[in-house]
Amino acid sequence: MPDKILIYSRFPKAELVRFGERYMLLNAAGKRPTEMFPADELAGIRAIITAGGTPLGGEAMDMLPSLGAIICYGTGYEGIDLAAAAKRGIAVGHSPGANASSVADIAAMLMLAAVRRLPVADNYVRSGDWVGRVPSPMMRPQAGMRGRKVGIFGLGEIGRKIAARAAAFETEVGYFSRTRYDVPYHYFPNLEALADWCSILVIAVRAGTETVGIVNADILRRLGNGGIVVNISRGSVVDEAALVAALTDHTIAGAGLDVFAREPHAPDALTALPNVVLTPHLGGHTLESHVAMQDCVLANLEAFFAGKPLPYRVKGT
Amino acid sequence: MPDKILIYSRFPKAELVRFGERYMLLNAAGKRPTEMFPADELAGIRAIITAGGTPLGGEAMDMLPSLGAIICYGTGYEGIDLAAAAKRGIAVGHSPGANASSVADIAAMLMLAAVRRLPVADNYVRSGDWVGRVPSPMMRPQAGMRGRKVGIFGLGEIGRKIAARAAAFETEVGYFSRTRYDVPYHYFPNLEALADWCSILVIAVRAGTETVGIVNADILRRLGNGGIVVNISRGSVVDEAALVAALTDHTIAGAGLDVFAREPHAPDALTALPNVVLTPHLGGHTLESHVAMQDCVLANLEAFFAGKPLPYRVKGT
Repeated sequence: MPDKILIYSRFPKAELVRFGERYMLLNAAGKRPTEMFPADELAGIRAIITAGGTPLGGEAMDMLPSLGAIICYGTGYEGIDLAAAAKRGIAVGHSPGANASSVADIAAMLMLAAVRRLPVADNYVRSGDWVGRVPSPMMRPQAGMRGRKVGIFGLGEIGRKIAARAAAFETEVGYFSRTRYDVPYHYFPNLEALADWCSILVIAVRAGTETVGIVNADILRRLGNGGIVVNISRGSVVDEAALVAALTDHTIAGAGLDVFAREPHAPDALTALPNVVLTPHLGGHTLESHVAMQDCVLANLEAFFAGKPLPYRVKGT
Repeated sequence: MPDKILIYSRFPKAELVRFGERYMLLNAAGKRPTEMFPADELAGIRAIITAGGTPLGGEAMDMLPSLGAIICYGTGYEGIDLAAAAKRGIAVGHSPGANASSVADIAAMLMLAAVRRLPVADNYVRSGDWVGRVPSPMMRPQAGMRGRKVGIFGLGEIGRKIAARAAAFETEVGYFSRTRYDVPYHYFPNLEALADWCSILVIAVRAGTETVGIVNADILRRLGNGGIVVNISRGSVVDEAALVAALTDHTIAGAGLDVFAREPHAPDALTALPNVVLTPHLGGHTLESHVAMQDCVLANLEAFFAGKPLPYRVKGT
């Protein structure tokens, strides 16, 4: 009989197909497992698949007394209480880098679309305003990419791929990261210095408790009135109210956002703005990155049930 | 007294400021010069500034008996009857390469936005469909950029800049161009072979009578059902009816278009499609490329009035 896996978060069915071919799936689909399945069934569960952003603390772990592995589908694991998992001897795995190219592509797309005001431009054509020659202040020429200073906050695998893409647009690239790397980009020792230097700030840092609201009103003001913020990391990194205020009063020029503070909610004050480009957290959402993420999940599960260490274990667990 | 210049096409006032500082401008703003100005005033006009896409034939040239220079604001000059100009001894200038980076940026933006379906995604967030978890077939994961074959039709200055940008997205790049260059991209001897090979076709060829409708139903079919067409050249290069048909019946997956057959008109059948990204011919429309184009116009005018050859003369004139 195949091993049983509890699906903890809510996933589209298409993303679970390959897991279902190998394992017997109990799909809690984001609901409390004890409400969905009888206790004796949960007692046999040794591994779960979850989304990194879904909160999962010690209390939830204790619903599954045999739990030995928490496997995150994707790169992130910020919802997992790692200390609680460690205390219970539960291994935590994820899919490092599997979606890095797709996420970096979205970052570049949002950067270009915010700089060139794509939503306004697309609507200008579709609405008939173009053929009617309706004046639109939003369509006036703006500074483009060439010669722009692009600052990357966080130079992990995704940040590095964003830097490579940004450089192809004849820009200068700088970064702030906890670690200084041997890379051909300007290094800044803190976020303030990076924001003073750049006009486009791309947030690619791994989110955690220490990054909550770190891109605040002060950082935004430092970008200047041509400033553009791109966020493909987590909504928590940005003070969303400060961002809406900065966009509304033109402290900065625009934003491209794939992530939000309380997903899938995007504040009305944000969605009403013309100078933003918004995508529903689909950075890693390509066929090839789903296949790569599933490869990591399956490799982690196979190793776990074979009594081996997880090949894609969360660092420090 | 400053020399007089006739502004032949319609330009936004902001684009004429630097010319007005040096010359006395007679702004016909796209209307027939003889309707706007008395014949004796036109008789003294030795140079005009026009947009390359505006038709300008021998009959129009003959309204200006002293005309010696036609200066196109921008790279294109396809509206100018070069033979008629040559016959009358009129020099034709343009702004080669001045907007190449900005146009290549728009090409990359349209490519990414079409591949990742940005207009649908942005609308999914803004409309509240995301928070309402409304199912959207258009939001299912699609093939992204990594490993894609990107074909560039036309490898002039803009095409080369597009190739460099596309390569940064971990793609394979190929091209068809009249000339084979020493570049690290696959060369194809004709458009059919390029279309058979690639799934993203970016049109960057200089438009002319020999390229009219050359991207036709057959070429589109060769791209396959994951195919994406990006056009930043001229609308005339694409058989627009065939493109609308291919997008409607899913012969190809999507398109990103900055140019259209009859600008500023974009067919309703096109603007109604969800799988397209449309911009109102703003490829070269950045502050830095306008400054660079104006630099070329001013350098051409200065040389002409000094009796010297145009520094940015249209090749072969």
